[in-house]
Amino acid sequence: MTRFGIIGGGLMGHGIAVALAQAGHRVVVYDADPATLASLDERIVRALERCDMLPGDAGLVTARITAAKTLSDMVVRVDAVIEAVPERLDVKHQVLEALEAKIPAVMPVWSNTSVLSLTEVAEGMRHPQRLVGVHWWNPPYLIPLVEVAPGAETDHRFVREACDVLNGMGKTTVRLHRDVPGFIGNRLQFALVREALHLLEQEVCDPVTIDTVMRASLGLRWSAVGPMENADFIGLDLTRNILDSLAPHLSAAVTFPALDEPLNAGQRGRASGGGLLTWPPGRGEEVAQRLESGIRRNLVGP
Amino acid sequence: MTRFGIIGGGLMGHGIAVALAQAGHRVVVYDADPATLASLDERIVRALERCDMLPGDAGLVTARITAAKTLSDMVVRVDAVIEAVPERLDVKHQVLEALEAKIPAVMPVWSNTSVLSLTEVAEGMRHPQRLVGVHWWNPPYLIPLVEVAPGAETDHRFVREACDVLNGMGKTTVRLHRDVPGFIGNRLQFALVREALHLLEQEVCDPVTIDTVMRASLGLRWSAVGPMENADFIGLDLTRNILDSLAPHLSAAVTFPALDEPLNAGQRGRASGGGLLTWPPGRGEEVAQRLESGIRRNLVGP
Repeated sequence: MTRFGIIGGGLMGHGIAVALAQAGHRVVVYDADPATLASLDERIVRALERCDMLPGDAGLVTARITAAKTLSDMVVRVDAVIEAVPERLDVKHQVLEALEAKIPAVMPVWSNTSVLSLTEVAEGMRHPQRLVGVHWWNPPYLIPLVEVAPGAETDHRFVREACDVLNGMGKTTVRLHRDVPGFIGNRLQFALVREALHLLEQEVCDPVTIDTVMRASLGLRWSAVGPMENADFIGLDLTRNILDSLAPHLSAAVTFPALDEPLNAGQRGRASGGGLLTWPPGRGEEVAQRLESGIRRNLVGP
Repeated sequence: MTRFGIIGGGLMGHGIAVALAQAGHRVVVYDADPATLASLDERIVRALERCDMLPGDAGLVTARITAAKTLSDMVVRVDAVIEAVPERLDVKHQVLEALEAKIPAVMPVWSNTSVLSLTEVAEGMRHPQRLVGVHWWNPPYLIPLVEVAPGAETDHRFVREACDVLNGMGKTTVRLHRDVPGFIGNRLQFALVREALHLLEQEVCDPVTIDTVMRASLGLRWSAVGPMENADFIGLDLTRNILDSLAPHLSAAVTFPALDEPLNAGQRGRASGGGLLTWPPGRGEEVAQRLESGIRRNLVGP
């Protein structure tokens, strides 16, 4: 078992801590914000409740996770460090600089970046060969996938080691040949989201209709058969014919009026009570529960 | 109950026939190819087996579907016609011209097009106001979604009528404000497929990895929470930040070397034994079964 340090105790950080501790690893979580650290235990208990763990088992998991009030206090107790701070390049650089000043050159560092280029995240590091992109999906203790990617200077020994640890936890790892912004999953996701916004902007339909389409067709299929297997299944000739027809009509946008409009009106989505959809009290919790139920029924399926 | 004529007894035509007959409608299927008509009964029985219907119920459904050897023989026995011929504009035009010569001006005609523009399909029709785009998903007796769209000249009375019939069958209908190539679902699907091919062409990963990512992350979620609800859930500000970062890197391609390469080598996918993936004997049937199981577990879920 490895002793992991996690920098950042927010949504992803505490979720990764739970996933690691469930697999028997010890975890020390550091966050610069005392309030985030103070609520850590409570959020971990809630996550374990959502996993339907028995109280005894949950207690074992909780006991493996401790908080550290300073980075120095964290690094002396761990064998590897995961940064799970917000996706801003300046924040990542600052955290990695402070971290490298305190740890030996051979200690592995995993970055939970996906949207940023890992190679850019590694810029300025003293020992960039140890930085591995390890992108977890939310919630990390429930979604099997972890995407692993090397930066331009990463030593592949560190990549292999990360995959070994994650596979040993029962995770489904995929290894990218090289890092690209968005890795694989977020590029696929946001290519689809970009087209959805395009349909709104073209006034073809409203946001609820987009979701109805996804949930009543493609969303029923993609846990069972992926898009490449499906392309072969229906035939690559048919796939190319369809793409030849459709591709000239698909979005290539880099600006998003369908998002700007609600944002300019102060509508940020769930947190503000309204966005593309309406968010009456209780909807946020209902969506979170629906999401977890949906994931679970696909995890147990054949 | 309505008496439907279906032109085209292939994959979609026979599937639509089964869906309609299961809901109590009578169906007459016409196909210009005698071999397609000859195998119709057998394919309907197989479809009903896959629906786990009791033999008595399956017998009732089968009895509602009959074949017609000529278009003239079909049209005299029906109240509405569905064209489910291949997605080629010249083929659609030819079929609709022959059809209109034989039916009254007020008879509804549904076109199962999605990739072509419905307005272009309607060009040359004597009575384009009766043509409604009614796009079913495969298999039509299992996937709830049916997308309904008007062409530029369609009378909205016919659109409402189509939605009423489909909703009465328990289908999940969405109504597009206007027709666009690919409707909604195929645009979302092929925006994602386009980006997947882009990742292959950039040598980020192989086709199997694309499918692993989909099945172990996004595919687990999209039957429960659609992309617009998710955008609100994580916040439209975060959604825009991610898109601002990723969109310039996403594919805007209109050519597809990742498809051309196997196609030029005679690899068309399942039917040719190989394509993006390898297709040993039995894999096609395994994929079909896996797909249906996947759909079913999401249909019964909460």
